[in-house]
Amino acid sequence: MDGLNMSRRIRRTPYTDRVEHLGVTGFSVVNHMLLPKAYTTSVEEDYWHLRKAVQIWDVACQRQVQIEGEDAQKLVQLMTPRKIAKAKIGDCMYIPIIDDKAGIINDPVMLKLSETCYWLSIADSDVLLYALGLALGRNLNVNISEPDVSPLAVQGPKAEALMVKVFGEHVRKIGFFKFGWVEFSGTQQLVARSGYSRQGGFEIYLNGSHLGEAIWNHIWEAGQEFDIKPGCPNLIERIEGGLLSYGNEMTRENNPFEVGMEKFCCLDEDVDYIGKPALLKIAESGVRQKIIGVLFDGDPCPTCSKPWSIKADDKNIGFITSAIWSPRLRANVAHAMVSKEFCNVGQKISIHITKYSILDGTISSLPFQ
Amino acid sequence: MDGLNMSRRIRRTPYTDRVEHLGVTGFSVVNHMLLPKAYTTSVEEDYWHLRKAVQIWDVACQRQVQIEGEDAQKLVQLMTPRKIAKAKIGDCMYIPIIDDKAGIINDPVMLKLSETCYWLSIADSDVLLYALGLALGRNLNVNISEPDVSPLAVQGPKAEALMVKVFGEHVRKIGFFKFGWVEFSGTQQLVARSGYSRQGGFEIYLNGSHLGEAIWNHIWEAGQEFDIKPGCPNLIERIEGGLLSYGNEMTRENNPFEVGMEKFCCLDEDVDYIGKPALLKIAESGVRQKIIGVLFDGDPCPTCSKPWSIKADDKNIGFITSAIWSPRLRANVAHAMVSKEFCNVGQKISIHITKYSILDGTISSLPFQ
Repeated sequence: MDGLNMSRRIRRTPYTDRVEHLGVTGFSVVNHMLLPKAYTTSVEEDYWHLRKAVQIWDVACQRQVQIEGEDAQKLVQLMTPRKIAKAKIGDCMYIPIIDDKAGIINDPVMLKLSETCYWLSIADSDVLLYALGLALGRNLNVNISEPDVSPLAVQGPKAEALMVKVFGEHVRKIGFFKFGWVEFSGTQQLVARSGYSRQGGFEIYLNGSHLGEAIWNHIWEAGQEFDIKPGCPNLIERIEGGLLSYGNEMTRENNPFEVGMEKFCCLDEDVDYIGKPALLKIAESGVRQKIIGVLFDGDPCPTCSKPWSIKADDKNIGFITSAIWSPRLRANVAHAMVSKEFCNVGQKISIHITKYSILDGTISSLPFQ
Repeated sequence: MDGLNMSRRIRRTPYTDRVEHLGVTGFSVVNHMLLPKAYTTSVEEDYWHLRKAVQIWDVACQRQVQIEGEDAQKLVQLMTPRKIAKAKIGDCMYIPIIDDKAGIINDPVMLKLSETCYWLSIADSDVLLYALGLALGRNLNVNISEPDVSPLAVQGPKAEALMVKVFGEHVRKIGFFKFGWVEFSGTQQLVARSGYSRQGGFEIYLNGSHLGEAIWNHIWEAGQEFDIKPGCPNLIERIEGGLLSYGNEMTRENNPFEVGMEKFCCLDEDVDYIGKPALLKIAESGVRQKIIGVLFDGDPCPTCSKPWSIKADDKNIGFITSAIWSPRLRANVAHAMVSKEFCNVGQKISIHITKYSILDGTISSLPFQ
């Protein structure tokens, strides 16, 4: 970990004062905004805590691209291979966004707020600029904006109990990947049952930065009886759980079939979108590489900040995209992009961290058990 | 300064190994890529050194958006209010990019490589996605890509002597904001007389990541007699010099007239681009606020990581966008966005860093003398 130099360009969130007060020690930058990534506790301690209690995460960097207007559905459909006409108001839907060569531009969660208003809750790329370019290019009747909405995640097995205590019994009725509304300080706020962990939980799409400190404190105080701690997307839990990360497991160099998104790609005749001809071609010829799990030996591995190459039979067959030591599995766990013919569970491989650090590993399925 | 958590998503550059070897202590993130921002020396020491010797900067984060094809000029003109038909092959041209409301999307330097190939050397936003959306929306005949080009800056009064030593006498002939070609390791490389300082210098647009280490070392060794040091865009020098920064002094909330870019906005009838009607309206009605310089008292100010509000006559009149202590002027220097009626040199103001830290200041012209 090295220092991060701050400036206005690296935007603070409505919760940054709170996370600083709670001892944040490291950030990442996502969508030109701070994402807390480390506190004074270790990633391992945070991992065990996330699996048994509840955490509050500043994920305001999951910015919303709001697409509103008569042509809103048309524009969103143009950007994604998923059939969005199926979505109902109140649905969340994971939608890869692809370019004309079927390269992945982003993998947001779409929220359908009304028949003419959608939010795309984005990973790290300026989807707003892509949507704006398309809308201006095609003369679509839409307004595209980044509203003052700052998601706050409540994650972990005790998340529901805490959310019910704070917002009332009706929170229980929100289904997985659905959203409902809660009241806070005289405002209506959107709450979805979702989040970037496999431990269950909610995301509050706080509308109004000025309420950030108040809602954080409110949840924090109510959470004391549930052993609440500040947290962040946990790298051990994410890799074990097979949750992919845009920019790490996939970039514009990859197509949806390489990263297990077949089920989100509609190839039917009644849906049309940018990149469909390219996708059809790939569907026919098959992919050359795929994201898969890797287990490997050695002491806890260093941070994977650049692809580590993978070999089998003395051939380069791919690279590690994310890796960390799993204290539960007593091994290093990783995601990797690997040539299709070597994507067999049990395949022996070697991981080349440096010229002098070469470790033995095995292809595994995702998620890790 | 806080910690930066590394991952593949925050891309390393061809020079990152080198800057780590030379003791980099802090980074920023620009275009999903590392930008070194601090070494073991202080910003003040770097400032004095930059003004008298020569520095080598890893600015690979200035990514190139390559627009190539029959409609390349048409697409670039669509994005900017500057009249680009004036550009000749070999020209660099500073071109604000604006949206349909005249909000600034980016402020790249355009390089005209041929009649059908342009590079946009971008600040921190995904211009590629905007260009791609427009091209797909309008069915333009262009290829849009991010080539494997990683700018390396050589800045300071001794930059020319060093570049001549390394690449030969013909480097002297490259005019300001023009580019030429040099030979390195059997390849032709683009060199422009440009850079993000007022001390003069060059930017080498290195084509080929695999050459990164070799070219860095080559310049480094040749530079020893000129007292070369690793450096980075220097905040003191940048603010004093009135060099604006996208994301700091301007965002999509601002139009070009607010940030002194009138001279880059062509309102003639023979040029058409997105946002022209909005610009014409603003040109007629005038702006409400402008970027201006601010001098203020007190000890060296903290890092400005969020806008500090500015008051005059007990009224909010704007905010500081970037600020730092100037050891030369023995005062804090800043850029600020201020209501037009208060943009008069000598105007007395107060700067509200926190509720308890309020300092007296004065409106100044840019650049600082």
